[in-house]
Amino acid sequence: MCELLGMVSNVPTDIVFSFTGLALRGGQTGPHADGWGVSLYDGLFARTFLESHPAFSSPLARFIRENPIHTALAIAHVRKMTRGGAALKNTHPFMRVLHRRHIVFAHNGTLPTVRDRKLHLETPVGDTDSEHAFCILLEAIRSSYGERYPADGRELGRTLYELGNELGADGVFNFLFADGEHLFARCGDHLSCILRQAPFGEATLVDADLKVNFNDLHGVGPDARMAVVATEPLTRDELWRKATPGTLWVFRAGELLATFPEPREGSGPELPGPSTLPGADGRAP
Amino acid sequence: MCELLGMVSNVPTDIVFSFTGLALRGGQTGPHADGWGVSLYDGLFARTFLESHPAFSSPLARFIRENPIHTALAIAHVRKMTRGGAALKNTHPFMRVLHRRHIVFAHNGTLPTVRDRKLHLETPVGDTDSEHAFCILLEAIRSSYGERYPADGRELGRTLYELGNELGADGVFNFLFADGEHLFARCGDHLSCILRQAPFGEATLVDADLKVNFNDLHGVGPDARMAVVATEPLTRDELWRKATPGTLWVFRAGELLATFPEPREGSGPELPGPSTLPGADGRAP
Repeated sequence: MCELLGMVSNVPTDIVFSFTGLALRGGQTGPHADGWGVSLYDGLFARTFLESHPAFSSPLARFIRENPIHTALAIAHVRKMTRGGAALKNTHPFMRVLHRRHIVFAHNGTLPTVRDRKLHLETPVGDTDSEHAFCILLEAIRSSYGERYPADGRELGRTLYELGNELGADGVFNFLFADGEHLFARCGDHLSCILRQAPFGEATLVDADLKVNFNDLHGVGPDARMAVVATEPLTRDELWRKATPGTLWVFRAGELLATFPEPREGSGPELPGPSTLPGADGRAP
Repeated sequence: MCELLGMVSNVPTDIVFSFTGLALRGGQTGPHADGWGVSLYDGLFARTFLESHPAFSSPLARFIRENPIHTALAIAHVRKMTRGGAALKNTHPFMRVLHRRHIVFAHNGTLPTVRDRKLHLETPVGDTDSEHAFCILLEAIRSSYGERYPADGRELGRTLYELGNELGADGVFNFLFADGEHLFARCGDHLSCILRQAPFGEATLVDADLKVNFNDLHGVGPDARMAVVATEPLTRDELWRKATPGTLWVFRAGELLATFPEPREGSGPELPGPSTLPGADGRAP
């Protein structure tokens, strides 16, 4: 299995704090030692850094922590291989170009039969079930929307929710999918999220004795908001919300834009807003 | 305008020496200060590092020089913008997936009317004529070969030669195109190449007082061969061969596989083999 990390904010900031926690799980506090990758958007263009070695001891991962790249949308992944050997071509996130934008995808889980599905246009470079599933999603988006890109994240969210249920019916399909504006996060069995908004407080990593005051981060002003999604909570003094299996969240500009399945009338939202969370002033509850 | 660098060898080695020369032209000894990029193949998968800042002062470019990644096929580029602003999305090399492999492309020159050509499937992410031209090449390959990839570099070389002439008729079209096995290099107006083979000698950069003995490079054994292509020769004590405008070279495993237009019977080859070059023992003539 693997661990996922996604971040989307309304101002470009750095993800060093969260990436540090994830990188530690890449071979030190966690067993995910078969590679790591991170995709950092600059507009609709994502730069991807990948290695097939453990993240915690990687000079490149250290370089990224020491030379933070500012971004408002990022996906990171540490890998413990299940399908496909430890090679760059099997390392998440995967990237393709669609409708003048980079699409980035990372998966946690296994889809044992997904590679039986025939592809028509997209092709995987590596051997993973994950990249094959990504290709299926891309082909489905092309065939659903043709030359039009579904710029409203709710519309694409519904499509990805339905595809997620279809492919996830045979296996475990936690995934993060980004299009330069939105972060789509599907829970197969494990996914947690936190919404933070200014004024922020401090938080401490689960995986290291490292504290951050988010107010000190680059780009953080009085209106800053950020949403962070991870396989397991990354901080120990904030209240993370666990997703119900089958849920797909759509985030944009640091906020939750939509939840699928849509909450029934009268029931509360799947995910409380930051103001209703204990510790929503940014301090630990 | 920009400068191009391509390398293909029969054993994975590092391209630090050549990349150092190119990086210096990225803002120090040359005016190419609007970004740089390098794609390094690992099998059919290419990792791409890009920045929209000058290469010569870039911490990431320095990191790559100090932590050399071994590769048998690479393309690098330093950019002086002509069409499209200084942004990551406009930085070469460009990458797409085709037939289970990464295809990497970098361009030097301008194609003023190429963006009038309609695209049907591929889309550019940035605003350059170069990426648009790359998309045209990819669509033409898809429509020429369908589900089959032209694994013989001579076959794809002929296609790229013809496409190069067609697109290059209106503008300047020096390009490097790689598919994980082959390096295709087209000369629009400026392109030089050198074939090196073991036992190597020393060479000195044109752009710095830096000498290398290629025998000391990682992976270099008695059968090692490498082909290097660049807009302008990178070393001062080796004999580089200048291409005639309109020529397309196909390199594989450090050797010249084909030249287009094909040499007429009775005329010598477009590019002499290493053994016929002065200084072919690797020492300066």
